[in-house]
Amino acid sequence: MSMSDARYMALALSLGRRGQGVCWPNPAVGCVIVNEGRIVGRGWTQPGGRPHAEVVALAQAGGAARGATAYVTLEPCAHHGKTPPCAEALIAAGVARVVAAIEDCDPRVAGNGFEMLRRAGIEVSVGIGEDAAARDLAGFFLKTELGRPWVTLKLASSFDGRIATASGESQWITGPEARRAVHAMRARHDAVLVGAGTARSDDPSLTVRDMGVAQQPVRVVVSRYLDLPLMSQLARTARQVPVWLCHGPGVDGDRVRAWEGTGARLIPCAVEAGQISATDLLRQLGGQGLTRVFCEGGASLAASLLAADMVDELVGFTAGLAIGAEGLPAVGVLGLEQLSEAARFDLIETRAIGADILHRWQRQ
Amino acid sequence: MSMSDARYMALALSLGRRGQGVCWPNPAVGCVIVNEGRIVGRGWTQPGGRPHAEVVALAQAGGAARGATAYVTLEPCAHHGKTPPCAEALIAAGVARVVAAIEDCDPRVAGNGFEMLRRAGIEVSVGIGEDAAARDLAGFFLKTELGRPWVTLKLASSFDGRIATASGESQWITGPEARRAVHAMRARHDAVLVGAGTARSDDPSLTVRDMGVAQQPVRVVVSRYLDLPLMSQLARTARQVPVWLCHGPGVDGDRVRAWEGTGARLIPCAVEAGQISATDLLRQLGGQGLTRVFCEGGASLAASLLAADMVDELVGFTAGLAIGAEGLPAVGVLGLEQLSEAARFDLIETRAIGADILHRWQRQ
Repeated sequence: MSMSDARYMALALSLGRRGQGVCWPNPAVGCVIVNEGRIVGRGWTQPGGRPHAEVVALAQAGGAARGATAYVTLEPCAHHGKTPPCAEALIAAGVARVVAAIEDCDPRVAGNGFEMLRRAGIEVSVGIGEDAAARDLAGFFLKTELGRPWVTLKLASSFDGRIATASGESQWITGPEARRAVHAMRARHDAVLVGAGTARSDDPSLTVRDMGVAQQPVRVVVSRYLDLPLMSQLARTARQVPVWLCHGPGVDGDRVRAWEGTGARLIPCAVEAGQISATDLLRQLGGQGLTRVFCEGGASLAASLLAADMVDELVGFTAGLAIGAEGLPAVGVLGLEQLSEAARFDLIETRAIGADILHRWQRQ
Repeated sequence: MSMSDARYMALALSLGRRGQGVCWPNPAVGCVIVNEGRIVGRGWTQPGGRPHAEVVALAQAGGAARGATAYVTLEPCAHHGKTPPCAEALIAAGVARVVAAIEDCDPRVAGNGFEMLRRAGIEVSVGIGEDAAARDLAGFFLKTELGRPWVTLKLASSFDGRIATASGESQWITGPEARRAVHAMRARHDAVLVGAGTARSDDPSLTVRDMGVAQQPVRVVVSRYLDLPLMSQLARTARQVPVWLCHGPGVDGDRVRAWEGTGARLIPCAVEAGQISATDLLRQLGGQGLTRVFCEGGASLAASLLAADMVDELVGFTAGLAIGAEGLPAVGVLGLEQLSEAARFDLIETRAIGADILHRWQRQ
């Protein structure tokens, strides 16, 4: 591996991340085409998932793709889907070498893309930037392999882990810089997920504001009985930005029709021990094509995802004040018998953000 | 102010901090003596509070102090206490110039030290390194001005602010690096303070281990009824390392005698709303000469100190696991009516420490 291979791949990875949150159900891939040390094409998976990164980069490169090296963050696809396979496009453009970060796990691709390229006489290298690609594309891999999206759980709390006072006051525990970071994180996920309690008490819009995003994340609310106020920001705006309601069986028909009337999508889920099953919830969301979900609480939904060990990343915003034990906890009852049962997360980063701290952790 | 003045003062400040935790009731002062660009003496307040920093540094400098500049982190004392005043010693040594970070607030000194030096023809500059000195000596200033020590409150908790599972299991939420940092922090305080519940459930020794300290911090336990187990590490070792028990009025006489028999010091405190009053507790500890107290919980004592707005610094260790709402909270009931009433703390630092994060905050 040459130094410049790693550098071009780092660029491809950063381009790929531009598609996060907007190109589902497809993976957010990046591609850089280099001819004799000159970058002649750059591309990433476009909003809605097409065109793919390679096609965008090849179009930009034009004739300069002949004899060039293509850096792609994921194995080029080999199957005829809604578009011809990218491996074919690379061959047709006369690319001499393909450097890929990681093999695709989609059984229609998995190695076939590389095989197709090699048969056409293209030199193929795999593995440069693999760790970063595995992390960036983790949601796509989880959906493909386990049928569920990557789950980031965000909790913004006081120094002592409370998200509101006893009377429910929660604005503003953390400051404007933390809130802005939350909007940026929403934008990099396919959907924002909250529990019914949060939807009822905060009347949130759950949109990304002031970021100039190409496409808003889907807003998903989990509500067993669908007892959510129709006079709400979500109901009013469900035709502009998708609202999906995940509910349990036997829901009142009037409620179903009223919510369908707003433009919301209703997704029936299984119930387990009186609650929407976290496992089934995520299977349903994966089935709808979501690869990355950003959960913003409340305490019951957070506990249910943690108890099912389905949280992949924890994001904490901690403020420099204490609310006390009578305040609302960030995470509900988990039912741990012993400390050794608790899922452990590895620290990714911690830093000051405005007057608060941000800390990110990934499941071990 | 010359660049080298600031540099020599920074050295004096770092020397001064070596006395933190071991020289109470005196301030932890540092002193550097410089003659023609050469450091000829360095000193800091010694364990037990004497000799003072200036005397140590002058002894090291010997004849080289004549015509030199002395950098001291606090105004040299001017009163005859157990030792002759340091201002006199500086004059006798023939020092030409004194650079001090901050004026003493002790009414027996406050400006008199500088006045004595100036009358002897010594050039005096005040204010270089003032902010750092004010912070390092904050405990001494608080004790002198308000009669109470500086209070650092440390909480080691899970991601969701719990210090133990519902069954009381708390070992080990945070890792060995965090625990080692706690020992280093204990060593920089005059006393370690815990509530009766923590003393009962953990049977802690509360000593500084593996740090080669000159003097262990006092171990202070708050127990309204003095109902603490006599078969405990604290009782067994009270003659080696001081144990102070802060209790309420009307305590059983047998208990008092039994604890006095272990070598512990008993400190009666006022009770307020059924609990040892945080205000009186700290006044008593200040009266005993403590300048810096490190509180390690539990939840009730932490809440009582926070509710009285007597926490000067918050130190958090946060681990990458969730325990859930049934776990024990780090802070007990505070009785806040509104979020705007909560005391706010400014972030000092946040960083990874082993697998955990450390975050420190100072009262605004």
